[in-house]
Amino acid sequence: MKRGVVVTQIPRADARHIEILKEAGTATVHEAQSRLGLLATYLRPIYSGAAIAGSAVTVLMPPSDNWMLHVAVEQCREGDVLVAAPTSPCEDGYFGELLATSLAARGVRGLIIDAGCRDVRALKAMDFPVWSKAVSAQGTVKETLGSVNVPVVCAQQIVHPGDVIVADDDGVVCVPAARAAAVADASAAREAAEDGKRAKLASGVLGLDLYAMREPLARAGLRYVD
Amino acid sequence: MKRGVVVTQIPRADARHIEILKEAGTATVHEAQSRLGLLATYLRPIYSGAAIAGSAVTVLMPPSDNWMLHVAVEQCREGDVLVAAPTSPCEDGYFGELLATSLAARGVRGLIIDAGCRDVRALKAMDFPVWSKAVSAQGTVKETLGSVNVPVVCAQQIVHPGDVIVADDDGVVCVPAARAAAVADASAAREAAEDGKRAKLASGVLGLDLYAMREPLARAGLRYVD
Amino acid sequence: MKRGVVVTQIPRADARHIEILKEAGTATVHEAQSRLGLLATYLRPIYSGAAIAGSAVTVLMPPSDNWMLHVAVEQCREGDVLVAAPTSPCEDGYFGELLATSLAARGVRGLIIDAGCRDVRALKAMDFPVWSKAVSAQGTVKETLGSVNVPVVCAQQIVHPGDVIVADDDGVVCVPAARAAAVADASAAREAAEDGKRAKLASGVLGLDLYAMREPLARAGLRYVD
Amino acid sequence: MKRGVVVTQIPRADARHIEILKEAGTATVHEAQSRLGLLATYLRPIYSGAAIAGSAVTVLMPPSDNWMLHVAVEQCREGDVLVAAPTSPCEDGYFGELLATSLAARGVRGLIIDAGCRDVRALKAMDFPVWSKAVSAQGTVKETLGSVNVPVVCAQQIVHPGDVIVADDDGVVCVPAARAAAVADASAAREAAEDGKRAKLASGVLGLDLYAMREPLARAGLRYVD
Amino acid sequence: MKRGVVVTQIPRADARHIEILKEAGTATVHEAQSRLGLLATYLRPIYSGAAIAGSAVTVLMPPSDNWMLHVAVEQCREGDVLVAAPTSPCEDGYFGELLATSLAARGVRGLIIDAGCRDVRALKAMDFPVWSKAVSAQGTVKETLGSVNVPVVCAQQIVHPGDVIVADDDGVVCVPAARAAAVADASAAREAAEDGKRAKLASGVLGLDLYAMREPLARAGLRYVD
Amino acid sequence: MKRGVVVTQIPRADARHIEILKEAGTATVHEAQSRLGLLATYLRPIYSGAAIAGSAVTVLMPPSDNWMLHVAVEQCREGDVLVAAPTSPCEDGYFGELLATSLAARGVRGLIIDAGCRDVRALKAMDFPVWSKAVSAQGTVKETLGSVNVPVVCAQQIVHPGDVIVADDDGVVCVPAARAAAVADASAAREAAEDGKRAKLASGVLGLDLYAMREPLARAGLRYVD
Repeated sequence: MKRGVVVTQIPRADARHIEILKEAGTATVHEAQSRLGLLATYLRPIYSGAAIAGSAVTVLMPPSDNWMLHVAVEQCREGDVLVAAPTSPCEDGYFGELLATSLAARGVRGLIIDAGCRDVRALKAMDFPVWSKAVSAQGTVKETLGSVNVPVVCAQQIVHPGDVIVADDDGVVCVPAARAAAVADASAAREAAEDGKRAKLASGVLGLDLYAMREPLARAGLRYVD
Repeated sequence: MKRGVVVTQIPRADARHIEILKEAGTATVHEAQSRLGLLATYLRPIYSGAAIAGSAVTVLMPPSDNWMLHVAVEQCREGDVLVAAPTSPCEDGYFGELLATSLAARGVRGLIIDAGCRDVRALKAMDFPVWSKAVSAQGTVKETLGSVNVPVVCAQQIVHPGDVIVADDDGVVCVPAARAAAVADASAAREAAEDGKRAKLASGVLGLDLYAMREPLARAGLRYVD
Repeated sequence: MKRGVVVTQIPRADARHIEILKEAGTATVHEAQSRLGLLATYLRPIYSGAAIAGSAVTVLMPPSDNWMLHVAVEQCREGDVLVAAPTSPCEDGYFGELLATSLAARGVRGLIIDAGCRDVRALKAMDFPVWSKAVSAQGTVKETLGSVNVPVVCAQQIVHPGDVIVADDDGVVCVPAARAAAVADASAAREAAEDGKRAKLASGVLGLDLYAMREPLARAGLRYVD
Repeated sequence: MKRGVVVTQIPRADARHIEILKEAGTATVHEAQSRLGLLATYLRPIYSGAAIAGSAVTVLMPPSDNWMLHVAVEQCREGDVLVAAPTSPCEDGYFGELLATSLAARGVRGLIIDAGCRDVRALKAMDFPVWSKAVSAQGTVKETLGSVNVPVVCAQQIVHPGDVIVADDDGVVCVPAARAAAVADASAAREAAEDGKRAKLASGVLGLDLYAMREPLARAGLRYVD
Repeated sequence: MKRGVVVTQIPRADARHIEILKEAGTATVHEAQSRLGLLATYLRPIYSGAAIAGSAVTVLMPPSDNWMLHVAVEQCREGDVLVAAPTSPCEDGYFGELLATSLAARGVRGLIIDAGCRDVRALKAMDFPVWSKAVSAQGTVKETLGSVNVPVVCAQQIVHPGDVIVADDDGVVCVPAARAAAVADASAAREAAEDGKRAKLASGVLGLDLYAMREPLARAGLRYVD
Repeated sequence: MKRGVVVTQIPRADARHIEILKEAGTATVHEAQSRLGLLATYLRPIYSGAAIAGSAVTVLMPPSDNWMLHVAVEQCREGDVLVAAPTSPCEDGYFGELLATSLAARGVRGLIIDAGCRDVRALKAMDFPVWSKAVSAQGTVKETLGSVNVPVVCAQQIVHPGDVIVADDDGVVCVPAARAAAVADASAAREAAEDGKRAKLASGVLGLDLYAMREPLARAGLRYVD
């Protein structure tokens, strides 16, 4: 995590795989990659109902200093997701309406920030989703360098530039760019399998029977008493 | 709190009393039973506006293991509320859309879980309310037994199977089955008394006068100064 | 912070300045007064979308005792905001629908409380906004005196009676009554400046260029690499 | 959890079993009873090094009100441990030097309190150990009844009067009185087994070999790479 | 809370009163001034056993910026206690061995800081006690002004320059300078009264009898059952 | 962060540099590497006074499963520090006396674990220091693979195998193996510079003069008033 560096070339996964991951959602994607890559649950969407996926442009920021967010905007393309992490814990409001306007103009799908966000009402009105650690009106300064597109630790997970970020009401999950195709396939397969199960369960079939749990439960010693 | 036991017969309160408790809401019910039975306020609804009451089917679960939720589904009837508690603190996502589909098919009114929940958007779409400690995409395993319909500690309160659970935007309160009738009566009486007060306060009568507080305040030494 | 005192005369800022501060919102107002006066971010609105400003009527309350809220109602006028703080930390539900009915009848715009609130659904239905530390059905008693319209520490900030309180989805900020005019002017100036920037950023101009950051970034040592 | 009741007769486990449980310590005892009964880890000793076990005299207390602690003292005997829980969360300092003096005069071994404690220095000087949720100088009142020797929820576990409480630097565990003998036996057996393992591990034998883990690890797919 | 101001003249209480308050300790002093002035319990001593009292020299600091601590040193005298608060929440390590060396050279008795502290081992070795919100190796900058000897909010209490600060293992309490004499007298009276009680309780007299609680308990409805 | 892999060859820094870093301590080392690499401050030593440095052997563990700690022991050498991180947040007691005995037999200097630890008294008695997120008697299982000597996120920082870990009462800092020499030099230089400052400050020279702050403070607008 060097300071003062902007990496201008990053890998990006195939847009079709990103779309499949978005449709599958964080819970399915997390399962599909062996339960790795889930960002800490303290990251919460500033409004409910948003669901996005995109390629990570990463930002390493000093505490209370959002200078590098401005630098990062220029590195973003249509379909990207900005992932911002401070070098030490901070809940100040690094991000608000003006930066969102700039990112939206470039087609960025949303922001994941392990810190605070402000202008919540305006962000909701322009439908620019943010998953943040806090909502805070406390502003930041522009004095010290960080880096753009270096690996960062965001909410307890390593995010590399170009990783696919999937975010929705259940949280945020990170899929390495090189695994996007495989995880998209596995996610789609899980989704298909769930469709059949959902119909059966809705009709009243018990999971105990659908998943053949009665025998292993009995073997484990489960007893039914009045 | 024995492990490996499913109790199949539990008491349930009268449906009319349960309905009255639901209408009264958690704040009134909590007052009506002498301020006992309130679950910890860290339990929050995954979406706002839901209000339910029903008979508790209780589940004791190992950490990160949701096997017993599947066992519990079979013990639920129309009008029940599932109450799930881990044996040690855990915020993983024990519960999602498929289990909710199965519970909804049986007429269960909602879930109270002292742990995490996922598939928030789908649960909201199907209007299956959940009060949980966390939202988390982190899945669980199915390896170790717990119990169903034994007394559990859920969010700092003892819940016995068949207790009436009342839950809304203000939180969750537990009423022992044997006291449901008495607490329903007391709740209804409080509600009726509040209707009259509300009208007076809305017309501009001060609580100081309505509740005859001026004299005891003066006696306690309250002084008015410019 | 003396106990047992109700101060009946407090300064209030000019209504036009209060209106300007409301329109500017907490983030802008906080910037406009040199980043002072922001209440702790653990205060959250009980429903989203509300935005108010008004003159603070302050209440100092014992833990778990809301007697003084009833005393405070009488001191409130059209356009005020009630600011309530316990003498030691408490998350009980001091405030609900009946007190809100009484305050609404007097034209009070909302409540800021460094403690808990209940009857969330009713408060939302009557559009009486509250920023609180917790939602809790736990009631309080009426036994011990506090004070009304003395300086209080609410969510880590000193609030004097008559200070202007600005609250919205981004949090709560306090402006001393004597500074309301100056801060309103500075807020309006910031707003005007932002309008121009917003249009440029929306058209694709980068903040790097709009704010002339490229040169200072280079001087600080920022390097671009492939 | 009824209010206003003092139960004067409670079961107590055999002193020899209590002594064995104390020697085994919380971690071993918790294992020996199938990982049930561990109180929440937010309970911490006010000074390190203390290790006790004894029969629980339980106290249910209103928030910020320690009247029932005075009532409970009379119910305590030589070898007991006081277990105190508020009806709603509270971190005030319910307990200090004077109450400890009174309990020490009766041979009570310590206090477990799901709330705050004060006079830490004096308690350490008299070697009266306390496991509490907080240290707080904030005093309490004596106005409202609770109960003594009813089942309570203390730090997320049900404690019945007469249960054996084991507490040390690792935390607090509760053993039902009726199971004290069996858990003491199982604890002693675990202790004996650990003695042999400790010696082997100290001599350099690896756990991988001592516990025969290599084969199941390989079967699970573990690979060693340079 | 203006920025950029150093007030060089502050009131200080009489040294004899300060000494009495120190001997009484925080719990007694807090009681003696009607349970007002207790700083939040998240302030903890970095090592146990220290007990101090002194006149507050206050410091208002920007987040992550300790420049004003250096300014404050010059304003301190023998017997003072430094009280430092950030303008927005921050847990960085503002204070360490070098600043402590400088304060110790001037006879300052300790530091109360609503933020982080570092060099814990060295501070303990030189016996310079600190009550802080966190221990953190994270350093701060020296770029932005705050103020010295203005009123500050420190851990949820207003502290004015010259107030008497009492701190020990139970926490930190603030006594207004003008009330120091009265609170010292009240504290000494409480101490004297407690001496007699302590001796009686140690001899086995019950608090129920010593405080004449049996009659009011019975009147409140307390029942004893087997 | 692949599962099921044990990397047997890792780089290690020079022992002399590790020793210098240990002597400098976490606060100095953190400064010396531009304030990067500090692990979250919620990691606390289980007893005070320990200070270590060593090469990281890293362990990635499933929640509530300590199987991989046993695997990791074999990969440790004299002078190493074990760094253990769960794939999702967990505070269970993964580590206790037996594992410590095994590590001590191999010359390991301590454990950094982003989870819980138990057997605190025994660990202190054998002087095996642990920095952990929690103390918990809750045991774990041995059922699922993780990895050894892959990069892990521990307490919000990336730790690579072979990185130098420095830990003391101020917390834990991580130095990349390749930078150990440079950071050791910079740390030693800082230490030397501080020796001179400490002597001057102890003699009463003010930091304002020693660091030539008066002029920049005046320029920034600092005013002294009576």
